[in-house]
Amino acid sequence: MLTFYYAPNTCALASHIALESAGARYEAVRVSFAQQEQRSAEYLRINPKGRVPALVTERGILTETPAILQFIAQTHPAAQLAPLDDAFEMARLNAFNSYLCSTVHVAHAHRMRGYRWADDPAALEAMKKKVPQSVGECFELIEREFFVSPWVLGERYTVSDMYLFTLANWLEADGVDAARFPKLAAHRERMRADPVVRRVLESETSVQ
Amino acid sequence: MLTFYYAPNTCALASHIALESAGARYEAVRVSFAQQEQRSAEYLRINPKGRVPALVTERGILTETPAILQFIAQTHPAAQLAPLDDAFEMARLNAFNSYLCSTVHVAHAHRMRGYRWADDPAALEAMKKKVPQSVGECFELIEREFFVSPWVLGERYTVSDMYLFTLANWLEADGVDAARFPKLAAHRERMRADPVVRRVLESETSVQ
Repeated sequence: MLTFYYAPNTCALASHIALESAGARYEAVRVSFAQQEQRSAEYLRINPKGRVPALVTERGILTETPAILQFIAQTHPAAQLAPLDDAFEMARLNAFNSYLCSTVHVAHAHRMRGYRWADDPAALEAMKKKVPQSVGECFELIEREFFVSPWVLGERYTVSDMYLFTLANWLEADGVDAARFPKLAAHRERMRADPVVRRVLESETSVQ
Repeated sequence: MLTFYYAPNTCALASHIALESAGARYEAVRVSFAQQEQRSAEYLRINPKGRVPALVTERGILTETPAILQFIAQTHPAAQLAPLDDAFEMARLNAFNSYLCSTVHVAHAHRMRGYRWADDPAALEAMKKKVPQSVGECFELIEREFFVSPWVLGERYTVSDMYLFTLANWLEADGVDAARFPKLAAHRERMRADPVVRRVLESETSVQ
């Protein structure tokens, strides 16, 4: 039995969809960012980084979306969520996920979490101002170079689709018009219509 | 035969050490950041992100350090550079690498590459000013929580050691005193003394 810590509207959504898609046995525990639970002593014992997601397994606690996604795929091979038997295709998948976590998510984070990298209020404003451009450039590159269609890797639906979908949900709030990216916009609509994705989204926003 | 694109004093060092440790057949090609070669039309055809590392394989081009590291380990299993047969240990390795690329490297990048996230020169200065603190906090967390010793994962030397070493080399330039982290400082010295690491460092800085 796994225990999965998440907060709504965060990158934890990708792992949540993966768990549900894999048919994993897990309990989902919501962490309230509004109440700063991610900074509580109790949660910091689970994830000293004070972030979500975190996945408690029988062997220890895992963090970081790309690592959790690969772990879910590897431990639930019947669900075929990643090209596990092909090192090159796995590297394509991991390169895509790595770009999402280290470049796309980071560009987005400068809108609300600029305090991680500067203290001056004017600097935080300057960061916020550039988010539509920097996030927009990331998605342009994905649309043009890395997204094969209909799924990230091509014909095969993988955990990368769940991760891309998660970050693509933030486009409008980041001031980016998703219509600029026809393939990605179609992908997002397809993901939104998926019964598993709908179930996870509803569970994340249900009243507790 | 692989072709590996790198620039000295960048995160490409981790993959370079991995290739050499794996006994891979590869040609290393230096990209001159001083001459902005990473932005040339020729290089952008190899890596549209305009960054290093990039690894040209028979099946296509790979980017992103965590993906390249896992690929080298998987395609050279005899070198035992990762716990390939253990999904949980692989997830620990990938979680560590993911933290390095999405948090540690990003904190560091605010010293020299702040223009990615803001245009205002005062904001770039404000970012630069916070680097000693933000990078220092990352390494504190690694020292206290994630680094097992003697190697990142414990008794086993893996690609994560190469990646940690690469980023730890930037501590002084980031204004962080490595002596604050005794385990990490000892790790860095051990890595620096390694014949493979020395060979790679010498090749990266040799006159061409």
